[in-house]
Amino acid sequence: MRNIDVCLSPELIHQYELKGKIVVVVDILRATSCMVSGLATGVAAIKPLADVDICKGLKQEGYFTAGERNGSKVEGFDMGNSPFEYMEPHLKGQKVAVTTTNGTLAIEKSKTADQIVIGAFLNLTAVAKYIQQQDKDVVVVCAAWKGKVNLEDSLFAGALVERLAASHQPECDVPRMMVKLYQIEKNDLFTFVKESSHARRLNKLDVFKDIEFCVQEDTFDIVPVLRDGHLVLAG
Amino acid sequence: MRNIDVCLSPELIHQYELKGKIVVVVDILRATSCMVSGLATGVAAIKPLADVDICKGLKQEGYFTAGERNGSKVEGFDMGNSPFEYMEPHLKGQKVAVTTTNGTLAIEKSKTADQIVIGAFLNLTAVAKYIQQQDKDVVVVCAAWKGKVNLEDSLFAGALVERLAASHQPECDVPRMMVKLYQIEKNDLFTFVKESSHARRLNKLDVFKDIEFCVQEDTFDIVPVLRDGHLVLAG
Repeated sequence: MRNIDVCLSPELIHQYELKGKIVVVVDILRATSCMVSGLATGVAAIKPLADVDICKGLKQEGYFTAGERNGSKVEGFDMGNSPFEYMEPHLKGQKVAVTTTNGTLAIEKSKTADQIVIGAFLNLTAVAKYIQQQDKDVVVVCAAWKGKVNLEDSLFAGALVERLAASHQPECDVPRMMVKLYQIEKNDLFTFVKESSHARRLNKLDVFKDIEFCVQEDTFDIVPVLRDGHLVLAG
Repeated sequence: MRNIDVCLSPELIHQYELKGKIVVVVDILRATSCMVSGLATGVAAIKPLADVDICKGLKQEGYFTAGERNGSKVEGFDMGNSPFEYMEPHLKGQKVAVTTTNGTLAIEKSKTADQIVIGAFLNLTAVAKYIQQQDKDVVVVCAAWKGKVNLEDSLFAGALVERLAASHQPECDVPRMMVKLYQIEKNDLFTFVKESSHARRLNKLDVFKDIEFCVQEDTFDIVPVLRDGHLVLAG
């Protein structure tokens, strides 16, 4: 058996040894759901960046730019942070440069890992299968909300712990707690998640449809991985 | 309605505004369970200290000294970190100076709060009643294990959220998550908690009896509060 651990906030990441491990970064609402949706429907590559200005500058190099802060699109960017924007036909074969409040920072902070994989409910089973093809420990890094532990990313962590039960055992208490929580809520994730702090925050911004989309499991059978600074399809 | 929030680790405490609020510090295995047990059975006052040497020095001022690091008693101290040691008859009317790996640090980091209250399963209902006599927001600060989120402190947080449901609403996702977890596990806390990382760590140190004692609810009807650097009975 290999181990699985769960880091509930990027602010706790120093507690985890990532070297030699696969890190699954998750930001259900909505960064990693967007990345999965885009790459599954034809986007060629996505470059995650923590800095807004650097991200914006990549427009000159032919990237479409996506920028979100506090749930809203940043001025001067081509796209905000809705998975539907990432699935637009004109993005097929194109590259996207993206910066978000929490998700891109979580990727940045996970860079000592052996591999960074992008997880969402949308590609949950695909991520689990991808991990099981390898013989490595796993740490799920939840993007959280400005460091604060959130419901939807924690639930995803629990879901992945469940899917990997045959190959990976919980390394400490957090994966055990989250798999329990996921198991009691999994039949109606939408009801539970739409009451989360972040969903309520986003609802004010009229993105209810996004939330409903992001809690669907296994819509896509793809796995984005970070290679040379870009997220691309694994394999 | 007032609000209740839950800080899962002292390393996340900067995310919480404590000013004007009641902080309930919890370290089920075993610091706050010891404090509650001692004060409930006759210890006059307990002085929590983050530093081992300062704590040890208080022996000269007539304190009994209790020191624990990594689950074991520190050499040169009168007591370790078992609730049974705190209930010894010779401690009646005496003062105890205590330092532990996590619990005393959590108290130290909560000092901007309006009031610091010591919580454990042993005095759960008493703490809830004490809070409901006041009109203040509450933050539960989990001592965790060297910063890592743990099961037993998180479950206590969920238990207090449940007990305060009529007066305090969850401020963000964490209290909502933990109350769910507590509600599915509350009928057999011992089974769940004895599989926790920390319980397994302590079991090696032969303190199984302590764990069984510490997960009992409402053994004592007292509330320790911090006043002038000492924990004493409220009221």
